[in-house]
Amino acid sequence: MAGDDQRALQYEQTLMYGRYTQELGAYAKEEAARLREEGGWRPSVKERSRSLELLEYDRGRCAKCRICTVRCQKFLISRVGEDWIFLILLGLLMALVSWVVDFAIAICLQAQKWMYGGLESNVFLQYLAWVTYPVVLITFSAGFTQILAPQAVGSGIPEMKTILRGVVLKEYLTFKTFVAKVIGLTCALGSGMPLGKEGPFVHIASLCAALLSKFMSLFGGIYEEPSLIGNKNESRNIEMLAAACAVGVGCCFAAPIGGVLFSIEVTSTFFAVRNYWRGFFAATFSAFIFRVLAVWNRDEETITALFKTRFRLDFPFDLQELPAFAVIGIASGFGGALFVYLNRLIVQFIRKQKTINKFLMKKRLLYPALVTLLVSTLTFPPGFGQFMAGKLTQKESLVTLLDNRTWAKQGIAEGFDYIGNSQAWNHPQVNVFVTLVLFIVMKFWMSALATTIPVPCGAFMPVFVIGAAFGRLVGESMAAWFPDGIHSDGTIYPIVPGGYAVVGAAALSGAVTHTVSTAVIVFELTGQISHILPVMIAVILANAVAQSLQPSLYDSIIRIKKLPYLPELGWGHHEKYNIRVEDIMIRDVMYITLNCCYRDLHDVLLAGHLKTLALLESSESMILLGSIERAQLQALLSLQLGRPRRLEYLRDRATAEMKRLSMVSHPGSEDGSQRVNQEVRFQISTEESSFSSTPTPSMKPLKPALKRPSVVDRPPDIHMPTSPQDHSGNTLKNLFCVNPETEGLEDDFDVDDDMTIREIAEWEENQLDEQVNFDNCKIDPAPFQLVERTSLHKTHTIFSLLGLDHAYVTSIGRLIGVVSLKELRKAIEGSVAVKGVKVRPPLSSFRDSGTSGTSSSNSENEATELHKLWDRHKSMSLPREHLASDSDEKSQ
Amino acid sequence: MAGDDQRALQYEQTLMYGRYTQELGAYAKEEAARLREEGGWRPSVKERSRSLELLEYDRGRCAKCRICTVRCQKFLISRVGEDWIFLILLGLLMALVSWVVDFAIAICLQAQKWMYGGLESNVFLQYLAWVTYPVVLITFSAGFTQILAPQAVGSGIPEMKTILRGVVLKEYLTFKTFVAKVIGLTCALGSGMPLGKEGPFVHIASLCAALLSKFMSLFGGIYEEPSLIGNKNESRNIEMLAAACAVGVGCCFAAPIGGVLFSIEVTSTFFAVRNYWRGFFAATFSAFIFRVLAVWNRDEETITALFKTRFRLDFPFDLQELPAFAVIGIASGFGGALFVYLNRLIVQFIRKQKTINKFLMKKRLLYPALVTLLVSTLTFPPGFGQFMAGKLTQKESLVTLLDNRTWAKQGIAEGFDYIGNSQAWNHPQVNVFVTLVLFIVMKFWMSALATTIPVPCGAFMPVFVIGAAFGRLVGESMAAWFPDGIHSDGTIYPIVPGGYAVVGAAALSGAVTHTVSTAVIVFELTGQISHILPVMIAVILANAVAQSLQPSLYDSIIRIKKLPYLPELGWGHHEKYNIRVEDIMIRDVMYITLNCCYRDLHDVLLAGHLKTLALLESSESMILLGSIERAQLQALLSLQLGRPRRLEYLRDRATAEMKRLSMVSHPGSEDGSQRVNQEVRFQISTEESSFSSTPTPSMKPLKPALKRPSVVDRPPDIHMPTSPQDHSGNTLKNLFCVNPETEGLEDDFDVDDDMTIREIAEWEENQLDEQVNFDNCKIDPAPFQLVERTSLHKTHTIFSLLGLDHAYVTSIGRLIGVVSLKELRKAIEGSVAVKGVKVRPPLSSFRDSGTSGTSSSNSENEATELHKLWDRHKSMSLPREHLASDSDEKSQ
Repeated sequence: MAGDDQRALQYEQTLMYGRYTQELGAYAKEEAARLREEGGWRPSVKERSRSLELLEYDRGRCAKCRICTVRCQKFLISRVGEDWIFLILLGLLMALVSWVVDFAIAICLQAQKWMYGGLESNVFLQYLAWVTYPVVLITFSAGFTQILAPQAVGSGIPEMKTILRGVVLKEYLTFKTFVAKVIGLTCALGSGMPLGKEGPFVHIASLCAALLSKFMSLFGGIYEEPSLIGNKNESRNIEMLAAACAVGVGCCFAAPIGGVLFSIEVTSTFFAVRNYWRGFFAATFSAFIFRVLAVWNRDEETITALFKTRFRLDFPFDLQELPAFAVIGIASGFGGALFVYLNRLIVQFIRKQKTINKFLMKKRLLYPALVTLLVSTLTFPPGFGQFMAGKLTQKESLVTLLDNRTWAKQGIAEGFDYIGNSQAWNHPQVNVFVTLVLFIVMKFWMSALATTIPVPCGAFMPVFVIGAAFGRLVGESMAAWFPDGIHSDGTIYPIVPGGYAVVGAAALSGAVTHTVSTAVIVFELTGQISHILPVMIAVILANAVAQSLQPSLYDSIIRIKKLPYLPELGWGHHEKYNIRVEDIMIRDVMYITLNCCYRDLHDVLLAGHLKTLALLESSESMILLGSIERAQLQALLSLQLGRPRRLEYLRDRATAEMKRLSMVSHPGSEDGSQRVNQEVRFQISTEESSFSSTPTPSMKPLKPALKRPSVVDRPPDIHMPTSPQDHSGNTLKNLFCVNPETEGLEDDFDVDDDMTIREIAEWEENQLDEQVNFDNCKIDPAPFQLVERTSLHKTHTIFSLLGLDHAYVTSIGRLIGVVSLKELRKAIEGSVAVKGVKVRPPLSSFRDSGTSGTSSSNSENEATELHKLWDRHKSMSLPREHLASDSDEKSQ
Repeated sequence: MAGDDQRALQYEQTLMYGRYTQELGAYAKEEAARLREEGGWRPSVKERSRSLELLEYDRGRCAKCRICTVRCQKFLISRVGEDWIFLILLGLLMALVSWVVDFAIAICLQAQKWMYGGLESNVFLQYLAWVTYPVVLITFSAGFTQILAPQAVGSGIPEMKTILRGVVLKEYLTFKTFVAKVIGLTCALGSGMPLGKEGPFVHIASLCAALLSKFMSLFGGIYEEPSLIGNKNESRNIEMLAAACAVGVGCCFAAPIGGVLFSIEVTSTFFAVRNYWRGFFAATFSAFIFRVLAVWNRDEETITALFKTRFRLDFPFDLQELPAFAVIGIASGFGGALFVYLNRLIVQFIRKQKTINKFLMKKRLLYPALVTLLVSTLTFPPGFGQFMAGKLTQKESLVTLLDNRTWAKQGIAEGFDYIGNSQAWNHPQVNVFVTLVLFIVMKFWMSALATTIPVPCGAFMPVFVIGAAFGRLVGESMAAWFPDGIHSDGTIYPIVPGGYAVVGAAALSGAVTHTVSTAVIVFELTGQISHILPVMIAVILANAVAQSLQPSLYDSIIRIKKLPYLPELGWGHHEKYNIRVEDIMIRDVMYITLNCCYRDLHDVLLAGHLKTLALLESSESMILLGSIERAQLQALLSLQLGRPRRLEYLRDRATAEMKRLSMVSHPGSEDGSQRVNQEVRFQISTEESSFSSTPTPSMKPLKPALKRPSVVDRPPDIHMPTSPQDHSGNTLKNLFCVNPETEGLEDDFDVDDDMTIREIAEWEENQLDEQVNFDNCKIDPAPFQLVERTSLHKTHTIFSLLGLDHAYVTSIGRLIGVVSLKELRKAIEGSVAVKGVKVRPPLSSFRDSGTSGTSSSNSENEATELHKLWDRHKSMSLPREHLASDSDEKSQ
């Protein structure tokens, strides 16, 4: 027991401030290594090894194979802890999920086509079928997601970006969310709306990783008892989540390299190169299995690209075509920025129109249904849809757009031996160019609109298709302009509009997501890299244009959703360099001093809701010694004021009284107390083994409590939840629960206590005046410190590099302020707004309204509850004079 | 003046500990922004704008176009500071260099072939020509490099890795090195030895970037006055160097994406995603220009890949071929590790054999000549070379190896309409397989040997070719084994050995360099991505095997060269998690206290040569207040003991004396002092504007000096060098230069001073006993702190993340130790050696012998000089009793 405590203490002292998100599971491995060293502390492991020994010594010959089996099993279980097993499992699982989802979507889309085809006799019925089917699917998807897990709505990349930044959004990684996301996504994509699966797949892969990690904790290795390792496992989890993001993209497009790069670009700020292999390994395996499944299902003869192209290899493009590619890049940059703006404008419009908003809030499913109705009506093939290839699904359009034959030159109808889908682009009355333009324009706003529907969906694929169409348009124009190619030599190399489509797809998706790696994705998707230079040039130009106009789609959503993410500093915002930490820091820091009394602790805890508090030498010197977690202080307080100590006090008093009286008493009850006490002890010790990472001093083997039945009856006092937040809530409740109102059940308790409420209050007041003993307290001696003159830019770098959420500002050892993520975010956004720079102005209106981040609202709630409790406590406690003066002193 | 000082002070206070290598040129931009704000402080800018105004108002109509020109020029000059201009110029320059080098190499190789062909009548003459030519070229290359810049020897990637880690290796980025590297590389590769150009190109690109940055400092923008921004420009430079590495690989292989990824993997530990675009932008531009040059030179019809392959697209490989690809991967892993080991073994052998070593040292060019002779003799085509395609250059062998036709099945001679080079593989007497095996085995050790020659050369390309040959061997075997392909359906898909060659090339080069991105390079080199999954699988397997056996080639060279680089922690070295900072830290920390006197400062400066010193509250409390740079302390000391103060003291004494005497004196001389003093002041103020980043308190407008002529005559006193190191050296010289030996020139000075040497020593002793005034000192109030229980693993992460070179270890604010990069490196290497883990044992012998890092030797030199000076000073100064007791106190 004592050893455990010592170890816990040892462990705590290693705690350094901040979460180093890029770290190689240091804590987790550290813990695991230590545990392995100590060996066999876990009963199940012990038993297993004992059973092995028994097998070896008890039985004869035929047991050999059994021993072998057990050994193998043991070996396998020990291997389960290795990263690569986890990554393989993750890859396998995601490949299966991706394949199943694709399969289901294909069936859904086929069903729609079949219905549409079967009703060819009656256009009205056909229309009804064409429209009803997606409306039902989308409505179901929206409803299902809303009911099961509203967190599953949308792309998921912004949330993953936030989580990988180090902010815990717990509800985003639950099994419910997984189910909601997978089923919701399948239905949403099965409806044929212009939605994508990439973003959701990043989220699904992360969910898979989180769940798999939980599942594997049932086995040995690192995964043992995640609660034991607690927060320290976080960095390892974050690494795994980063790999999972790569897997998500990789298995969605069968693009391992592009997947890794895209996920890095989209989710990371600083990337640890040594974790590179994780992503590559898992994504490659996943993409491999995903394509192997297609081969096994006889869809393909062998492993090839998803949207294989067949451009000629010898002369992919002429040097003189490069200006056209550059034009595609620049136009795509503007288009991408417009898409992001449009998408945000729609959300903004819906939110602002209060009447619409109210109506939509009442009937949550009406908005998805209406949008779907509108979109599917417009794409109805015999109607307007005939002018924009409405018959084709997203996949079919992409395949036709990437085709290596020229439409305009030969005319689709005559020159094509390829009957199927390309026909859709050729309308008898309308030019191919008109069809393409209509397709681009209509799909553009439709995609921007459709991605605002509250279903799990991404925008990558629709944007990709629009980009391909735009590229095709330029390519067809070029082909019409130069029917025999541009090349001046004898050989005729006709222009390949499919190559333009590839360039356009990469450029537009790169512009919307602000990534360069869409270039790689496009190569992997098409299986050809011959257009590498045009694609790279177009993607870089598109990025340059789009990044100077608008945030990326994901950053835009982060701002709309107000997720706790630190925005990036843009290119060359020079005014940022003039802001110093002293301009943005909070000067009124909550702190505690080494020689403070419990009352000060109490006041500080009630006054704010910071997760850690500064520990100073004294309020005169203001020298920063370190920081203490809130939970630690709460534990200290609860230890001081808690029931065990009160009981101890009572017992001491009783002993004193007893001494004063004669020693004649009831030995039977004494025996009983002994028995029950042992029971309690046992309970405590088992609990402790799983909670030693949040050391709760109150859980130490306490001196025998006087009133045992109540202790045994009230498990909440002992069964403390794992998370410090909840734990603190409980201990404070415990601390303040002397109020009879809140403890209706425990009337007997107060009577048993031999103390009136007044007496207890008096006792507590005395206790509060004692000086705090920080001996057993986990103090972080090196919280991150800045200087008042540190520039905003540098602060931003440090915060994002180390994943900090706050840093103290000191002046030669003296604490003078604190900066948290919030201040930093405000400063970055504020300074942009104040100086009138034209970056992201449409977003400022979102800052006032809209949903607020979950974590901040949580902490506010906590604070409110604390205040309530305190008010109650105050109303019944003795009046205190020096409270005011105390707080005055603090605020100075 | 005062404003300047204040600003300088402000600026100093923003200094935080450590170099954040990944930062977006924060300091540089900050400074630039501030300077731009203040506007026109630079006379040339002022003049330029004034001339513009003059133009506008003075002249009439025809001046308009002139104004326009001036404006354009002004605009262009202001734009020059932008990153993208820099990157474009860098890309352009490197593309040109790459193309010219390639062209020169091609000519050299042609010349050899021509000579060889011309002497066909006489085999002996032919042999002589074949052998002499490379020997002469290599010897010239080695000699030229040795004479001009020995830093240009070798690959350069290890050095770049070290430089990007934040360690300054100045001599590696000079113009001399550039010239030596380019010419040396051209000659070395022109000799036809199995050497590569990739590594050197990384170095050349970095050199280009460094030189370009210097060159552009002639224009406006950020590049203005690099000395002013000083060290702060370093982070920006490092970013540019990282981009340059990408350019180097990109323009060498025309592989922009692979180049960026390869350079990240090879040189970075943590990568800032926001700098991603720089690499992509520059590398794409460079690769583009590089290929366009080939088109313009009529080598190619259009932009295509460097080693274009023509594998079939529809069915690139069968699923059942995957095991063969996996075998290639695993074998390449072992091969890669063997290559690194062999390479190191050769270096080790040469170094250990003292007789050989001595001999080689005397005749430095003998070793290259001997190695070249051996290699070229073995590849002599009519001799042994005929069995290993010795006639082909590296490029030709690669092209033939990647050919999509099968050699074994049809037999090269008959089936080939392709006369040229592939013929070389088919020997009339010997099987293709034997040729391939001989090629692989011979080239393997030849490459390992050749890369130890002290010329600028890389190992990537030879390894790549060997890998391709190995892949081809496996592919040909497979083709022989399954003559009709493996596919079970009706269609026959013959096996493509060229695909195996691609896989083998990527796997072996990935194994040697420990990178995954060779996969991407191979796609870009061949222009086909159809084998993506086999390549990825093989590369990952090869990496897994090689990384568990040996360090990468670059890490191996880092260790051989003993460059100051922090090694990576390998996969799953669990024993590392048990080492704590307290086990490795140095407990005997050098520190100064707030209330110390100048003598303590002096002693501390002499005792060690740390770049920064800890500042404690007092030696009792040991509370760490911050850290001070050595240069700062030296400046403080020089201010206290320097000549100006002595002169001031003399003046004061003189004034006192004068007061005591009557006031009758020479007013003329008083006037003269006024005049000269102003002159001095002017000189100081101009100097200060360019040195404000290294504030030298002695440069403040001093009180009128008594002896002006000597002040004006001795510019070294005022023209202090920019770098703090040199500056300190000078001030200390200044400080100790009372020794008559060193000041032969200045006899008059001592006489003028009115002080004897003894008097000065006495005065200095008095000065040394005064308490230090830290008011004007640049104190870093937040040096990085660790806790004694921080694990080695975490420490490693923090050091590599933040690019630290040391961190203090504190226990609740009290300093208890210090850990520097050196201790950390020792601990990581030591723990591996001690526990007997089989990682990198052959290297331990290198630790004792060999060349030592330049930076450490530099600082040692400095210390030695200081000691010398101090000894001299001591010998003539008064005896001091409390010196011993003082130092005793320190060491406690």
